[in-house]
Order: sequence, then C-alpha cells, then structure tokens
Amino acid sequence: MAEVTIPPVGDGSGIEESKRFLAEELQLALRNRAMPLEGLRWDITPTGMHYLLVHYDVPMVDASHWRLDVGGLVGKRLSLSLNELQRLPQRTLAVTMECAGDGRGLLQPRPVSQPWLYGGVANAEWTGTPLRGLLEQAGLGNDVREIVFTGLDRGFEGGHEQTYQRSLPIDTALHEDVLLAWAMNGAPLEPQHGYPLRLVVPGWYGMAHVKWLADIEAIDTDFEGYQQTSAYRYSQNRAEPGDAVTLMRVRSLMVPPGIPDFMTRTRIMERGPVELFGRAWSGVAPITHVEVSTDAGASWEDAKLDAAAGHHAWRSWRYTWDASEPGPYELCCRATDAEAHSQPLDQHWTARGMGNNAVHRVHVIVR
Amino acid sequence: MAEVTIPPVGDGSGIEESKRFLAEELQLALRNRAMPLEGLRWDITPTGMHYLLVHYDVPMVDASHWRLDVGGLVGKRLSLSLNELQRLPQRTLAVTMECAGDGRGLLQPRPVSQPWLYGGVANAEWTGTPLRGLLEQAGLGNDVREIVFTGLDRGFEGGHEQTYQRSLPIDTALHEDVLLAWAMNGAPLEPQHGYPLRLVVPGWYGMAHVKWLADIEAIDTDFEGYQQTSAYRYSQNRAEPGDAVTLMRVRSLMVPPGIPDFMTRTRIMERGPVELFGRAWSGVAPITHVEVSTDAGASWEDAKLDAAAGHHAWRSWRYTWDASEPGPYELCCRATDAEAHSQPLDQHWTARGMGNNAVHRVHVIVR
Repeated sequence: MAEVTIPPVGDGSGIEESKRFLAEELQLALRNRAMPLEGLRWDITPTGMHYLLVHYDVPMVDASHWRLDVGGLVGKRLSLSLNELQRLPQRTLAVTMECAGDGRGLLQPRPVSQPWLYGGVANAEWTGTPLRGLLEQAGLGNDVREIVFTGLDRGFEGGHEQTYQRSLPIDTALHEDVLLAWAMNGAPLEPQHGYPLRLVVPGWYGMAHVKWLADIEAIDTDFEGYQQTSAYRYSQNRAEPGDAVTLMRVRSLMVPPGIPDFMTRTRIMERGPVELFGRAWSGVAPITHVEVSTDAGASWEDAKLDAAAGHHAWRSWRYTWDASEPGPYELCCRATDAEAHSQPLDQHWTARGMGNNAVHRVHVIVR
Repeated sequence: MAEVTIPPVGDGSGIEESKRFLAEELQLALRNRAMPLEGLRWDITPTGMHYLLVHYDVPMVDASHWRLDVGGLVGKRLSLSLNELQRLPQRTLAVTMECAGDGRGLLQPRPVSQPWLYGGVANAEWTGTPLRGLLEQAGLGNDVREIVFTGLDRGFEGGHEQTYQRSLPIDTALHEDVLLAWAMNGAPLEPQHGYPLRLVVPGWYGMAHVKWLADIEAIDTDFEGYQQTSAYRYSQNRAEPGDAVTLMRVRSLMVPPGIPDFMTRTRIMERGPVELFGRAWSGVAPITHVEVSTDAGASWEDAKLDAAAGHHAWRSWRYTWDASEPGPYELCCRATDAEAHSQPLDQHWTARGMGNNAVHRVHVIVR
C-alpha cells in the first residue's frame, strides 16, 4: 500500500487566531448543520431541523442485510435483524442532544474543527428498545467495565483510519433510558441520523449516540479508541489527554427577537414589549432557573420557566422585555441547574473546543 | 422610528478576494445546509438531507389560522384553508431543485453571500395541487403578465425591508406541473421547507419555489420586487441589472469515492476498479450524456446513463474506473443536455455568484 499523507489544515497547529474561517471549516459547516435558533420554538425539533454532525460519510444501509451483533464478554452472542429488534419492548423518549463542540467557532483562539457557533443542539423523540434488555439477554460477564459501540461509518481522523466507535461505562449502559433507537419523531431514522439503528444516551453529548450501529461489545478494560481517548477530551493543549467529555454542560439559548438582515443576521425589532423565549438544558441535573440580561450582562432578571416536558428534554423559558428605547442592545441568557452549575460569562476554552457553554449573547437593534 | 443601519460585510464591496471565509458567510452556511455529496446515492433525497436556503427566519405557522389568498387581476378573489386546498385535484412529482447560488463559494474572486461549495441541490417528491386549476377558478384577466407569490418570511436584504416575493411569467405559472405543494416525500412539509404550503416550479432554480406561501396576485406589469430585479441576476458587476436567473443550468455531481478524512475531506481509496456514480440535471432540456475524466479534464470518457426517472428529476450515471496506479487523482464529471448546453471547465463568474455550473472536481488519493 502507498502511504497516505493527509495535508495539514491551516498551519497544522489545530489553532486558528484569525476571525476568518478556513475552507476546511466551511465545508464541514455545509455538511454539519446547526438548528437555526428560531427552531427553539418547536418543543420537538422537526427531523430536518435537527442539528447534525457526521464524522465521515453517511452510509447507505440496506436494512434487509443489516444485523446488530452483540458480543465480547457475554454468556451468549446475539445477532438481531431490525424486525427482531422491533419486537422487543419499546419506549419513546424526548431527548435533548447537543454536539460537544457546539460554540467552538466562538472561541478565541479558535480550535480548528467543525466550527459551530450556536445551535448544535435539538430535541427529538426517539423510539427504540432499552439497551439494558439486550445486554441482559446476552448475559454480561462479571468483569465487564464498558460497552463498546461500533457504527458503519469509516474514515480518517487525527491520522488514524477508523470506524466510528465509542464506549459507555457499564452503569450508564444499563440505565433504562439508554435506547437502541430505530425511529425519530415517529418515523424510521433518516439516513443521516443513523438508519437503521442508533444509540441514544440521554444527558450525554452527541458523540455518545453512535449512529449506524452495527456492533456492541462488552469489555473488561477501559476502551482506548481514538474518539474516546483523543477526540472528545477537555484539556488546555492537544498533547494532554485531559478529561473525558461526557454529560452535557448546563446551557441556554434564546430565539433572536425581531427580524434578520439576510447577510449579517443583524436583528431589528420594533420598540415596545417583546416576549423573549428560549430553552435551557443540562445533562447533569434539572434546570432550576434561567436569567436574562438586556444590558450585556451588567444586570440580570429571572425568566419564567415553563413546566418541564420530561427528564431528558430541554425546558422552555420566557421573559417579557419592555424595549422602550431605540438603540442597540446585547441580550444574554444564563441557565443554572439543580447542582448549582451555571453558565460562565466568558468562554470555556479547551484545546479541542469542547463544552463551550458561555452565556448566549444576541445583538439586536430596537427602532 | 430610529433609522436602522446594517453593518457592511467585509469591505462592503460584496466581493472577497481571500480564500478565508467571513464569519457572516459561516453563519449562513450553518443555517443553510448542503446535501452531502454521498446523498446523491438516494433517488429521492430524504427530507432532512435536502439542501436548504432560508433568506430570513423559518416562520412558525399555525395552519388552522393560515389561508392562501388569490387576488389582483382576477374575476373572483379566493381565500382557501389548507383543508380546502387538499380537496382539490392533486399530483406528486419528483423535482430536482438547486439553489441558484450553488457553487458560489468556489468562485474567485468570491461574491459574498451564502457560500455554497457543492451540494446546494436535492431531489424530492412534492405533492400538491396544480396552480393552474386555482388560477382558472379565480379567472385571470386578459392583461395578466405575471403572477406574484408572497411568503410569510420577513427581513432586510440589500438595505430593503421586505417579505419574500417572487413572480413567474404567466405562461410558466399556467404549466400543469407547477404545484402548490403541502407534502414532501409523502409527509406534511417540515417548517423549514415551507409549511404549510410552498410553490414548486420544476426546472427553475430554488428562489422561484416560494415557501410559506400566503398570497398570490395576478398583475399586468413586470414585477419589480427586490428578489426579482436585484438579487437573482446574472451580471458582471452588482450595479448592472443584467439578466434574470430562471431555469437551472446543466450540471452534474459525483459521489466522492473512497473514505474521507474528517477535517480536510481528503478522499482515500483502494487501488482497483471502482464504480463512480453521480447525478445530472438541467432545467432547460433532458440530459443526453455525461462524461468523466480521471486526469483533471485532459481526457474524457462517456459515463453510462441510467433510465430517466421523470421529466423533472435528476438522472443517475455511472462509470467504472480502473484505478490501478496509486497516487493523487483529480476526477471530473461533465453533463450535456438536449439543447447542447454543456458544463464549462472554468467557473461561470457573475457578480452575485449565480449559476456556477463548472465541472465538478473531486480529489482522491489511491493507495
């Protein structure tokens, strides 16, 4: 085999000081879309508005030839067709899912990867069978520490040729809300969301929800695949392994009020009272309050929280702002969860641009 | 009212020489996604993989309060609910739709707007009632020259506050294949595709397929709205009105072979025979042939065309390439239609970046 050299991006450091974006970042953004912020208005995000992050290519899977294999340290290996899976007990859960890199493109200096600004998040209804039942059917060995999930998508990343793989610790994998999902919003998964089957792990960032799932393996070690030990890590430089990215950090977003300018997305609204509306979520604990600032964070007022729509779904909030004086404003929202985690005012900078949950800032001109 | 000043983009010229992209371009790309090129494999593009271009915000429409009004130079004004529309005769058509700006981000120098590279195109099945029937029911005056379509999406663009509006010449509007569509791929329109109703104009670039359609007006003049006379034009500088953008120019794309590198999208494939596959379309005339080059356009071979899947749907093509020697290759595809329009080797540069149908070039490393 000829050796393959993947050309470096930018200067190869993986960090971009400029506010200009590289062509490589743009082409990722055109593939991996955000939910537009007005999409926050829908309790359940319509399928085609759901954010998307696909590491390699979307595989075209013929479900009639596809099977899910369960192996490793199990008493009985399993191999199931989609029809067989769909005869197992099923549940439907509304789950807010966010890409761990959401907000990366706002960081300064900027880690070079999918350049999310806002909106790498959505809330969908997933239907499937609890993973737990399948693992019990297979019979886990006593020494099992992790469950490894392998998709069908293959590519290069960080110099490693790989099929996408992630693991879960055994206690998470056995949680009754972790699903093997074949439907999204009441319809079969669309290809880009993992058809025919994906993992859904409520509370975790998106990288854990393995798409095009084909293989499940029980192991008695800590999984050391690239996506686990190199890609999704919090650290201050890329050479350090740092800490694992797991649960979604507390965050809130608002629907930008008024109407936009097409090119700049500048917002323009009429003076007078306006209801600001948004959503808040945390993978760690329930949302307890959301605050709003209409003066760039100098002062804060409590927003009204609507009733929670489920354990794993974002929570809506609203705040009536009397925008009586024309001029430019910077609006902010900040959520806090039941474990007292609150969004920072400044960026949460890490070398791979993970978990940046700084407060959402929206610029609007009142006329 | 306070005067509103929208800040200029870049240096305000609307032209960007650099290969770096502006933050304004990136945020448009994150809203307005391309179909990933592997999406070409699906005859009918899954709804969530369909490209999207939304000028302002996606409106949240309550269909129970929505009506379609038909007025202007008609014998009888009409106002119909969605239920009333759905009782009219209906048709389902597979229609390839492309954004007129597709390929804009490849131009040098680059017009600043939605920075499409490839993939601002898709092919969906649209179900609705022919516009013609509704116009006949309303009774058009003898002097009617154009039909104006008004959506519910509002914003600023080019300094003009506006609701999105486009017109069609009367002969186009009366074509039996122009639909008022309420379903896409067999399901109600998703919000981002125009729920509850959009116009579908087979053969035309996407700007004609007005979404969130609320009003239809017959006029005896040439419509002079911003989107008609300023935005979608072919010219060599922005000051010139130039020519109207109408039908889709002939174009073809291929599924990049092999597997990608996540960040750079560099393609790597094994040596040996590989079937190159893609799609071709033209709004002007049927596709008659597609050629493939594996040496950056120095020589060309005919691809095999599959049977056409309908008058308005893209046509698939395939070509077996024996990639026997390792190394880097530049693959190209070029389509020709029945009126002998063929894709140019070099960019079709216009000041607003419209209709760039230059041959598709895919770089791949054979190992």
